[in-house]
Amino acid sequence: MSETVKVVVDAMGGDNAPAEPVKAAAAAVEERSDIEVILTGNKDVIEKELEKYTSAPKERIHIVPTTEVIETAEPPVMAIRKKKDSSIVVGLNMVKKQEADAFVSSGSSGAVLVGGQVIVGRSKGVERPPLAPLIPTAEGVSLLVDCGANVDARPSHLVQFAKMGSIYMEHIVGIKNPRVAIVNNGAEEEKGNALVKETFPLLKACKGINFIGSIEARDIPSGYADVIVCEAFVGNVILKLYEGLAATLMSKIKGGMMKNTRSKMGALLIKPALKETLKEFDTTKHGGAPLLGLKGLVVKTHGSASSVEIKNAIFQCVDFKQQQINEKIAEHINEGD
Amino acid sequence: MSETVKVVVDAMGGDNAPAEPVKAAAAAVEERSDIEVILTGNKDVIEKELEKYTSAPKERIHIVPTTEVIETAEPPVMAIRKKKDSSIVVGLNMVKKQEADAFVSSGSSGAVLVGGQVIVGRSKGVERPPLAPLIPTAEGVSLLVDCGANVDARPSHLVQFAKMGSIYMEHIVGIKNPRVAIVNNGAEEEKGNALVKETFPLLKACKGINFIGSIEARDIPSGYADVIVCEAFVGNVILKLYEGLAATLMSKIKGGMMKNTRSKMGALLIKPALKETLKEFDTTKHGGAPLLGLKGLVVKTHGSASSVEIKNAIFQCVDFKQQQINEKIAEHINEGD
Repeated sequence: MSETVKVVVDAMGGDNAPAEPVKAAAAAVEERSDIEVILTGNKDVIEKELEKYTSAPKERIHIVPTTEVIETAEPPVMAIRKKKDSSIVVGLNMVKKQEADAFVSSGSSGAVLVGGQVIVGRSKGVERPPLAPLIPTAEGVSLLVDCGANVDARPSHLVQFAKMGSIYMEHIVGIKNPRVAIVNNGAEEEKGNALVKETFPLLKACKGINFIGSIEARDIPSGYADVIVCEAFVGNVILKLYEGLAATLMSKIKGGMMKNTRSKMGALLIKPALKETLKEFDTTKHGGAPLLGLKGLVVKTHGSASSVEIKNAIFQCVDFKQQQINEKIAEHINEGD
Repeated sequence: MSETVKVVVDAMGGDNAPAEPVKAAAAAVEERSDIEVILTGNKDVIEKELEKYTSAPKERIHIVPTTEVIETAEPPVMAIRKKKDSSIVVGLNMVKKQEADAFVSSGSSGAVLVGGQVIVGRSKGVERPPLAPLIPTAEGVSLLVDCGANVDARPSHLVQFAKMGSIYMEHIVGIKNPRVAIVNNGAEEEKGNALVKETFPLLKACKGINFIGSIEARDIPSGYADVIVCEAFVGNVILKLYEGLAATLMSKIKGGMMKNTRSKMGALLIKPALKETLKEFDTTKHGGAPLLGLKGLVVKTHGSASSVEIKNAIFQCVDFKQQQINEKIAEHINEGD
């Protein structure tokens, strides 16, 4: 059996804390024996939640009590600096001190991103650690990198995103020789803004990645590329529009189904098959978004994450550790330029 | 009765030329008596297509023969300069010389955008004419401005986009005091890349527009703002992802409906209601994207435009002319800064 992986889960982060993070912890240790979970947060509250899960092997769930919570609206840099006893700062410090392998939080994105870089620290050679969520496509999933950590990135950052993303897709998702594309406003090589025009030849010349050129946003959902490289502002627009458009379309479709008696009958017949199909297109199914290129692992889950999403993020941490992604990134980050 | 509006239609542009543009011309003059259409392109080919439409009032359809066609793959600046007798250049020159009020093309986006600026020319005071398509939302439509003409725009450009977009939404779509928002990677005022951070206070201080702050991409499909301001690279990503994601989701849903006998029966019952609902979310229903802030009117329709989309674009030109949008833009573009 492989070594136990220790994952800190922020029990106070997200819209559904502490109920969902605690439920995720209980489910994770029950489902897999190679995991220990450490919950950071208010001890009494966590213990009360844990009482619900009588069958979970509690010897693999630990509580590290903390007294502060970083709110989503707080300016992240200040919050990280001031709230030393918050569930986020304490969790990140455990990763830094190698008391844990990974930290998962549904709390303040800004605090997790800033804290990841400032407390856990960048891996040697990594210029900017990107946030890299998996997004669903017609073919499976693609990695969208970067999605929030570094707006106004430079070309060299994007080249590193391509390398780190390729390693992740190959070893975590299991796609051999993953296709890398850069988000562009046209398919032709001469298209692009200043950043893309400067980055394109660097990616083309970069050895060790399978660069297939530009990708127009239209082709992202069809699964045309495995690693989709872009600057964080654009990545954020893609990720958020994905979520917003899917939600609006689904509600339109539900509205159409409820239009009249005939369509309501149809809806009843169709529901199970449709539900199954659309589950494949669920952004929350694939766990959280890792912050790549740190000395430890930090994973951000949605603010609205359910216990299933958080549990999947915990499992993702185990794969990440067992596949030695950080070691591979450190080894390859400066190769092939 | 109002004055007749003269619209040049590029009969050689787009995947479905000349059949769809010619069909659109015939349908437009048949449906409305205040329109004349001038078709630019190969005379013999156009005449042969026109023969199909026996009931159309042909005295309001004219042909201006041209011998060249600009292909989508051609570098636009060179193409505009060299192909003087192309359907695009001849059409744009007619607008420039005020022999026509507007030009509609499904051909090369680059050539139409470059040609619009170089041949027709910018209205006095307009720094960069943006391409502004209407996108469907849960509430109706929003104007996405800019969507392709000017990557790496400056803050002053975005402020002008907001003003021109507001005029368009108020007078063409009929929305009083349209809500203007800037695309951002978070709802808080301190969020953003360098461009957004610099533009935000300018929009806030700008009189004569109803600026409501940042919009996250997640909230675009819900119809949270009427005028959505962004730099063209981001606008292109939003527009293309809208199209791509809607297509992928629809094909997933169709797949789900065909899964088994039960779901197939449901699909039959649901189809009419669903079709009607989804029609509201059709990006092609709203005609083409105007290039705002020119001395005349230039409208770009999808490369794959059907005759219905082109016909709607022709009608849009009539509204644009009758509502004196260009005059209103010229009057207000330097106000309130």
